[in-house]
Amino acid sequence: MSEPRWDRLLLNATLATFVGDAPYGLIEHGAIALHHGRIAWIGGMDALPDAPVALASVVESLDGALVTPGLIDCHTHLVFGGDRAHEFDLRLNGASYEEIARAGGGIVSSVNATRAASEEQLFAQSLPRARALLADGVTTLEIKSGYGLDLETERRMLRVARRIGRELGMTVRTSFLGLHALPPEYMDRRDAYVTHVCDDMLPVLAAEGLVDAVDAFCENIGFSREETRRVFECAKQLGLPVKLHAEQLSDQDGAALVAEFGGLSADHLEYLSESGIRAMASAGTVAVLLPGAFYALRETKLPPIALLRQHAVPMAIATDCNPGTSPLLSLRLAAGMACTLFRLTPEEALRGVTVYAARALGLTDRGTLAVGQRADLVVWNARRPAELCYWISGSLARKIYVAGETVSRRKPSNRLSSAS
Amino acid sequence: MSEPRWDRLLLNATLATFVGDAPYGLIEHGAIALHHGRIAWIGGMDALPDAPVALASVVESLDGALVTPGLIDCHTHLVFGGDRAHEFDLRLNGASYEEIARAGGGIVSSVNATRAASEEQLFAQSLPRARALLADGVTTLEIKSGYGLDLETERRMLRVARRIGRELGMTVRTSFLGLHALPPEYMDRRDAYVTHVCDDMLPVLAAEGLVDAVDAFCENIGFSREETRRVFECAKQLGLPVKLHAEQLSDQDGAALVAEFGGLSADHLEYLSESGIRAMASAGTVAVLLPGAFYALRETKLPPIALLRQHAVPMAIATDCNPGTSPLLSLRLAAGMACTLFRLTPEEALRGVTVYAARALGLTDRGTLAVGQRADLVVWNARRPAELCYWISGSLARKIYVAGETVSRRKPSNRLSSAS
Ligand SMILES: [Zn+2]
Ligand SMILES: [Zn+2]
Repeated sequence: MSEPRWDRLLLNATLATFVGDAPYGLIEHGAIALHHGRIAWIGGMDALPDAPVALASVVESLDGALVTPGLIDCHTHLVFGGDRAHEFDLRLNGASYEEIARAGGGIVSSVNATRAASEEQLFAQSLPRARALLADGVTTLEIKSGYGLDLETERRMLRVARRIGRELGMTVRTSFLGLHALPPEYMDRRDAYVTHVCDDMLPVLAAEGLVDAVDAFCENIGFSREETRRVFECAKQLGLPVKLHAEQLSDQDGAALVAEFGGLSADHLEYLSESGIRAMASAGTVAVLLPGAFYALRETKLPPIALLRQHAVPMAIATDCNPGTSPLLSLRLAAGMACTLFRLTPEEALRGVTVYAARALGLTDRGTLAVGQRADLVVWNARRPAELCYWISGSLARKIYVAGETVSRRKPSNRLSSAS
Repeated sequence: MSEPRWDRLLLNATLATFVGDAPYGLIEHGAIALHHGRIAWIGGMDALPDAPVALASVVESLDGALVTPGLIDCHTHLVFGGDRAHEFDLRLNGASYEEIARAGGGIVSSVNATRAASEEQLFAQSLPRARALLADGVTTLEIKSGYGLDLETERRMLRVARRIGRELGMTVRTSFLGLHALPPEYMDRRDAYVTHVCDDMLPVLAAEGLVDAVDAFCENIGFSREETRRVFECAKQLGLPVKLHAEQLSDQDGAALVAEFGGLSADHLEYLSESGIRAMASAGTVAVLLPGAFYALRETKLPPIALLRQHAVPMAIATDCNPGTSPLLSLRLAAGMACTLFRLTPEEALRGVTVYAARALGLTDRGTLAVGQRADLVVWNARRPAELCYWISGSLARKIYVAGETVSRRKPSNRLSSAS
């Protein structure tokens, strides 16, 4: 008997490959082989080259269970200090935004809590949130800075993001979001802050290897197109890709700006215009939809899904996990919300948390099930791909593989938030 | 040293008791003692009668973690065969309700799948759904029949409901919902079906101890007020309490009918009138709100929350877990949806899944933390009660006690749905 050629072989799987034109790229009665952290073989059971038991060191039958690529959450702010549950409570008890601001609420409260937290505290508070995402099938995760707004705290956030990836064995991609809000100490000195970001913060953090991409919040209540452009120019000089919080509350023509820089993605997009869509289509910029924020803010303006389809702009879906406008801890639920609230098909939503989410992060080695791809995959307590969007909440992930190794599905042992 | 007087003592807890008028009935820096399955003592740390270690066999510090009563889901249809994920997929791909019905979809598909399932299959398919609810803090659960619509299958559903309770150690309260839909074999013989329910099904199932309450779907597309009344009269003769799916899609004056029978609850209530509210207030009938169905159906008509408050009608919140209109597997998320979609305060929403949910089931021994109550409680990875509504999805339950015993937080090992 010859040496087994693969580390692991999963048999009798329903494989949602997201390759090719078949719905979900589905292979029913399929098999998938993992070797050295990659997918070594994939196809129908009847195409296996040999008797299965001889083929791999570990052979397992899945009895028809669904297998998808590991999910990819391409837009989160999950490293932050404190939480805003009290503000949520105040608001539902009738407090106005002004009263909440006077009570120390709003984004400033997250900035203050994040600045006040040590690296250890920030890690301890943020880790359970990443664990919750992982438990529901996320194996690759983007995390933004932006609650520090000073060099030290932005660095701390990005270091914690990297450490979360190491701790959980997930891939974490970082985005520097210095232009998230104007820090209180720069009130009335907007230009000086943008200069500080461009000259002092971004180059230093990039040199430390903490920045995979550069993001900004281009909005009336955020930063202008011109301010955003300054930071994008700086990113370009550093060879870093850009992305943008664009057209969430109004049309700033931000999508066209990020497209002009060949950006990875424009995110939110409720107020996106057709000319913005055309620019994105030409540049290959992914549209990242964030239904969690839409839901939590009770937004009624829908992103222009039909036009995005018409112009063949790829749509990704992300949690936007953040303490103020989307305390959402399940990417699968975000995909379900994209169906229910935005009327995406389950297939669009699932492509949006796999293949197009990978594209939104500039990653080509994951997001599909194909030979040579990283063996990041999830075996689900489900048979049909649509079930992942259909069931609201619940525990559907049966087994998660990261680079071919099973992740022990540890439960969050820490609190989800602050004050430990 | 004397015998410890309690089985277990939890120290340094943040206790949301839902007793008294303080917000959440909160006791900060509290302690709670469990003995023989009941709450034996509760109060502030400083009021403990003795040195803590001497007081109980097991003494544990919670470091400020939040403790609530075990959550109570007072309206579910979680025993069913099959699932309707494929129908969800078809609908989002543009199929009309007619096309879906022609493809075998709709409630009839759940009836067919439930009738086709053996008791063992129905149990295996339904158990993981109850487990998912339990994992997010539910310790008492109502389950309805209504996908059988014949004696054998209704009995099978109710037996499976009871068995789920035994298997998981949860309390399961059953409701007989013979008037859920007109079974195909009684098409054009409505009266004969209602007679069959009254004469043949309900008395038999009640005699077998399978029925804790009687429910009906009073709606244009369900059963009329008069048909509902016939079944309610029958329930009354059997000494069974009633409840009703009322005013979900139109105002049938169902709330007044259930109130007339001193019913436990009227559920859904989007189209409830002020006269219905007055009737409920007089009768002490609980308003059960089901935001999962509101969300999944993209309903826009809100239940009359302000009027319910004004007339002091207690509001409970439930998942309505069912395959067609609310495949929701988290009661905590239902509470969060009640805040976000219905603008309940977090306190109202949490009283709605504890004290008022108990009332909706006619249970007086749970739903609050007080001496003598069942020791059903949840220790959360949270400090503030509002966090339970604020975080969307995620794994917040740290430890669950049922009648004073910890529940091992087993993960669903079975599929959530059919075809095993
Ligand atoms: Zn964001
Ligand atoms: Zn119902």
